[in-house]
Amino acid sequence: MRIVVTNCNTTQEMTEEIVRGARAAAAPGTTVTGLTPGWGPASAEGWLDSYLSAAAVLDTLRTYDGPAYDAVVLAGFGEHGREGVRELVDVPVVDITEAAAHLACLLGRRYGVVTTLDRSCGQIEDSLETAGVARNCAAVVGTGLGVLDLAGDPGRTEAAFLTAAERARDAGAEVLVLGCAGMTGLQQAVGEKLGMPVVDGVAAAVKLAESLVTLGLTTSRAGGYQQPLPKERRWGRPARGADGA
Amino acid sequence: MRIVVTNCNTTQEMTEEIVRGARAAAAPGTTVTGLTPGWGPASAEGWLDSYLSAAAVLDTLRTYDGPAYDAVVLAGFGEHGREGVRELVDVPVVDITEAAAHLACLLGRRYGVVTTLDRSCGQIEDSLETAGVARNCAAVVGTGLGVLDLAGDPGRTEAAFLTAAERARDAGAEVLVLGCAGMTGLQQAVGEKLGMPVVDGVAAAVKLAESLVTLGLTTSRAGGYQQPLPKERRWGRPARGADGA
Amino acid sequence: MRIVVTNCNTTQEMTEEIVRGARAAAAPGTTVTGLTPGWGPASAEGWLDSYLSAAAVLDTLRTYDGPAYDAVVLAGFGEHGREGVRELVDVPVVDITEAAAHLACLLGRRYGVVTTLDRSCGQIEDSLETAGVARNCAAVVGTGLGVLDLAGDPGRTEAAFLTAAERARDAGAEVLVLGCAGMTGLQQAVGEKLGMPVVDGVAAAVKLAESLVTLGLTTSRAGGYQQPLPKERRWGRPARGADGA
Amino acid sequence: MRIVVTNCNTTQEMTEEIVRGARAAAAPGTTVTGLTPGWGPASAEGWLDSYLSAAAVLDTLRTYDGPAYDAVVLAGFGEHGREGVRELVDVPVVDITEAAAHLACLLGRRYGVVTTLDRSCGQIEDSLETAGVARNCAAVVGTGLGVLDLAGDPGRTEAAFLTAAERARDAGAEVLVLGCAGMTGLQQAVGEKLGMPVVDGVAAAVKLAESLVTLGLTTSRAGGYQQPLPKERRWGRPARGADGA
Amino acid sequence: MRIVVTNCNTTQEMTEEIVRGARAAAAPGTTVTGLTPGWGPASAEGWLDSYLSAAAVLDTLRTYDGPAYDAVVLAGFGEHGREGVRELVDVPVVDITEAAAHLACLLGRRYGVVTTLDRSCGQIEDSLETAGVARNCAAVVGTGLGVLDLAGDPGRTEAAFLTAAERARDAGAEVLVLGCAGMTGLQQAVGEKLGMPVVDGVAAAVKLAESLVTLGLTTSRAGGYQQPLPKERRWGRPARGADGA
Amino acid sequence: MRIVVTNCNTTQEMTEEIVRGARAAAAPGTTVTGLTPGWGPASAEGWLDSYLSAAAVLDTLRTYDGPAYDAVVLAGFGEHGREGVRELVDVPVVDITEAAAHLACLLGRRYGVVTTLDRSCGQIEDSLETAGVARNCAAVVGTGLGVLDLAGDPGRTEAAFLTAAERARDAGAEVLVLGCAGMTGLQQAVGEKLGMPVVDGVAAAVKLAESLVTLGLTTSRAGGYQQPLPKERRWGRPARGADGA
Repeated sequence: MRIVVTNCNTTQEMTEEIVRGARAAAAPGTTVTGLTPGWGPASAEGWLDSYLSAAAVLDTLRTYDGPAYDAVVLAGFGEHGREGVRELVDVPVVDITEAAAHLACLLGRRYGVVTTLDRSCGQIEDSLETAGVARNCAAVVGTGLGVLDLAGDPGRTEAAFLTAAERARDAGAEVLVLGCAGMTGLQQAVGEKLGMPVVDGVAAAVKLAESLVTLGLTTSRAGGYQQPLPKERRWGRPARGADGA
Repeated sequence: MRIVVTNCNTTQEMTEEIVRGARAAAAPGTTVTGLTPGWGPASAEGWLDSYLSAAAVLDTLRTYDGPAYDAVVLAGFGEHGREGVRELVDVPVVDITEAAAHLACLLGRRYGVVTTLDRSCGQIEDSLETAGVARNCAAVVGTGLGVLDLAGDPGRTEAAFLTAAERARDAGAEVLVLGCAGMTGLQQAVGEKLGMPVVDGVAAAVKLAESLVTLGLTTSRAGGYQQPLPKERRWGRPARGADGA
Repeated sequence: MRIVVTNCNTTQEMTEEIVRGARAAAAPGTTVTGLTPGWGPASAEGWLDSYLSAAAVLDTLRTYDGPAYDAVVLAGFGEHGREGVRELVDVPVVDITEAAAHLACLLGRRYGVVTTLDRSCGQIEDSLETAGVARNCAAVVGTGLGVLDLAGDPGRTEAAFLTAAERARDAGAEVLVLGCAGMTGLQQAVGEKLGMPVVDGVAAAVKLAESLVTLGLTTSRAGGYQQPLPKERRWGRPARGADGA
Repeated sequence: MRIVVTNCNTTQEMTEEIVRGARAAAAPGTTVTGLTPGWGPASAEGWLDSYLSAAAVLDTLRTYDGPAYDAVVLAGFGEHGREGVRELVDVPVVDITEAAAHLACLLGRRYGVVTTLDRSCGQIEDSLETAGVARNCAAVVGTGLGVLDLAGDPGRTEAAFLTAAERARDAGAEVLVLGCAGMTGLQQAVGEKLGMPVVDGVAAAVKLAESLVTLGLTTSRAGGYQQPLPKERRWGRPARGADGA
Repeated sequence: MRIVVTNCNTTQEMTEEIVRGARAAAAPGTTVTGLTPGWGPASAEGWLDSYLSAAAVLDTLRTYDGPAYDAVVLAGFGEHGREGVRELVDVPVVDITEAAAHLACLLGRRYGVVTTLDRSCGQIEDSLETAGVARNCAAVVGTGLGVLDLAGDPGRTEAAFLTAAERARDAGAEVLVLGCAGMTGLQQAVGEKLGMPVVDGVAAAVKLAESLVTLGLTTSRAGGYQQPLPKERRWGRPARGADGA
Repeated sequence: MRIVVTNCNTTQEMTEEIVRGARAAAAPGTTVTGLTPGWGPASAEGWLDSYLSAAAVLDTLRTYDGPAYDAVVLAGFGEHGREGVRELVDVPVVDITEAAAHLACLLGRRYGVVTTLDRSCGQIEDSLETAGVARNCAAVVGTGLGVLDLAGDPGRTEAAFLTAAERARDAGAEVLVLGCAGMTGLQQAVGEKLGMPVVDGVAAAVKLAESLVTLGLTTSRAGGYQQPLPKERRWGRPARGADGA
């Protein structure tokens, strides 16, 4: 089967890292195709970025013209858009936020999320709530590091993660979730130091997407996730380039 | 004071209707400026539309170059984007969804929302939940009419609204909320027939925006709604026109 | 329009301070009339006081024979009675507890309340819960100061407030609510020191009352807030004076 | 031991009926003393009545000068005041609303409450919520009968109760609670017809009060229910008689 | 009346201690019969023990052939099985977990539970939640002592209890619950030191059981707690002895 | 990898049916081993059965001496025991109840469960709640058919399922969950008729178990699910046979 994994930002290096993580998790017969939105934010850090990212990801999937695929993985932790993609495509859609939480619930009584900036915690909380998996979330804790800073100094990143993880554990977490697609590499290192399972959302989402495809299950059209109605839609204004605001 | 009221879709007629409603509610010294996004959906009906609308509204406000304003009213009922706008601008931001609910809570023990298509109910429920005002919402009920159909046959619209309102009342609602910016005209007619107060979100949001401005209150920067970080962002791809998908 | 603002206790000085705050918030055409109950507690601090206050406020409004008014503001933070007043009068009724919370929800993701004695926290929590606005309340924190002590030593009051506010912020609050009608004067001083918006309930309630009146909205009679049934009621025993218990 | 049972209204016949029910439930060594407030409403039906009743009951207990007692039972179903009485007296205080719910939770997975007028349902819901026992309440249903109408036509009362009970059962109730102190006589008749346990709040409260006294337990002074602070309080205006409003 | 009190483990000494506590709480006319399961764990500490204990307790009651009894008290704090016993017997069934919580709710606004090992906290939380009394539980805190260690060094046990109790109080508890049947002796000593009421589940359950019996109330058969269906059931494998795993 | 799938009852035919379903869902490299408890109920229908089943399943896994396995699937829908198995074994444990709910959450906004007897609904609700996935469950509905009746008359079973499914849909379900391991065969037939995705718990659990194994994740030992403490435990009384009670 083919799974399309969409980065939520325009940074190609991050797509590549996400695709590496997805491929490491995928079953032998699964092909992973990474997509980088042609527009949107260079990194998604906050609500404005998240809404911009959601539209860009939708546009990217809407105009995708590559080989047919069997499932979509949305690789923006805590970012918006998953319900819109469920309307758009006929294959299963799994968001890494919910995916990590679903698996974490199976591994302990309470889980905690460690993410990048504190400002992202609220989005993640809301995303878990509406996905229906917030009940057993003990805490969402920020490390103070930006999305694109994660790769900079591995030691600093790991130390910041461990500090935040301890706060989550004190709040009752027995399992940790990596709260950013760019944290995938941290899983092994910190898991051993913490003595707790650490769930990576990209890997979790790939496995859940494969599961749904294998079982022949896809999004219900019987309620809120019907196909978008045919109408005029404009996806951005003509002749626009990048800007720094 | 000047309040900018943003339509969530590209339909100019609807902006005009919203502005009429806003002006009817505004205090003598308040100037209402309507904004129609230069891109996005012709009407917002469902999640894909809502996320596209959120980005378009953000872009519209980001690139706005008219006279300075004191508050923003977001006139898309149940649509996304309000937290992003709170990051973007330094003035108070009021979304008509939450605004109607806030006032409705003051008028009865439980309120109900009557909206357009059933597919919109879920978004509204989530929007009320994250805004912190879902606790006293008895029901969100659809009329089966699309956003742009509301104006078509006033008799049919009113009948559909009354039928839906009865379902909300049976679920415990003592107050009704008009669940679409395009329903503003219905308020008086159905209020009398139902014997219940009917709250229009546009009017409610204008009054709440005026209240915040008068009291010198604006969005907190102390937590999740900090200003967007400076970074590269692309707001749509170059040279794109409208399409019908 | 005329708004009647009822103090919840018999201390005339506090009524005057509340009225000053209400007038400062009111629109040019709004007349504020303060009412001091003819009986009840000298200050409301705890459940017994609160229930006594509720009956006294109801009696005060029931026997009011001044000029007609358009709305009632109940100026006892966390005190009981609002639903009874909604039954009694035909105009909108806004309680300062709920009013502050409604506006605070518009200004940040979570708000906190700073109040007088710790023993008042529980009443406030219940009042926010039943008003439907507790979901986004991060904490209700006491300063340890009694209602009538607030005015005594401004420096001590401000210091106590700031200490309590920090606890609320640590619990996640991004916006603060002044949890006592007698705290109105603190708003500006502490807002700047804390870098957070500070909402005063009296001011908030005045704006919400004006909003409802302007929009022609009043309490629903369709459910729980019907007019009191005609029956024999005795409002206190004959020939009773004050006592110190 | 001696238990004081306070009626919530001024109707002496109802006090007598409540006392009969309390005595039927009491252990051999328990003396039941009924108290009728010297002021307040003739019956408590709605929020205004409830707040008036709360102050009158507090005043009645405050000025009580009979023999010492070991516990207080508050016999107003869904009425306010229990937290204030907990501040006032040093013995255990049990409200019939919470008492019935506590026992009902032990008898089935979900319970339902059948009460008098529909307008009382909201108060009961709030009372159960703040007492901490609403989680397993499936429904609160009104019979449409007023408090003082219950005794009028036993056949009509029973029929109205059975109709309401069926609605509660359809909502999931496996146990019923009599939602008015004046319904005590119905317990046996309707229990058999419904094939469900029926809990009377007065009887339940007497047993819980006896239990607490026997175990040497009384209200905690460690938090919200501290003794009322000494201060000036006026319990009603001088020289007031009854009125019909 | 006769109340059967079932220990949840096979340790006879603990049954005796529980029976002593039950008898101290019982009314003069109440006979307490202790039952020790013939199989199961020597102490219940964790989920595996709890499920084993539930089956053993059910088997013990199923095969009981002593004098008829009027109620069952299940004396395993936080242990499973109560719903099954409600199906099995025709008399009221009270679990000490829920019993302590029910009485604690009457004594303060929030209660806390102090239990043995930290690993037991989760079970207790779930047990309170499904019993419908978790809403006012501020915290469940472990002492770090095992069930059978409680009796070892009274000073150490009391000190550990006091430390845990302070954590519960800091979380808002105004009343304490002894979270293990083996803690019964602690009640008086720590209650005075803490200045808070301390509720023992065994005593609470005895009083609640007596109350239900006196009122003629027993488990509803109208919903989930119908009698077990007749079918083949095997209660353990032939010829099994004890083991140490 | 090898997955052990445990039936919750002693009916060998049902184990075989479950194993067939598990194998149909398993990946090529997965070996499925079915286990039938040597004791327990012939079918699990109600709380007593469920607790007996939990102990029997734990005993079966505890004394298992077959080839090593990589994960356990617990195939009793709504039955107890999963937390105990998580303590007992070092490999991932997935219960079919939670598994079906986790996948259902990915397919629609709300899901519903259709199960056998009405008496089982409560257990399922509690199981979903404590697993952390009840938030998006719209309804749990019984068909009125016993576990062992499902196979009897396929037409009757399908009709009863469809009737119950419509009730779930009316309550808001967009996805259905088969609420019994013995319903596996129904999935395809009813899915088409209903136009909704239908999730089978056995298949879901196999895929989730495979996912966890592939990702190297297993139950956290950092909190509530530590290994059982060494102590004396007796798993049933000596020399017991089957009986019909």
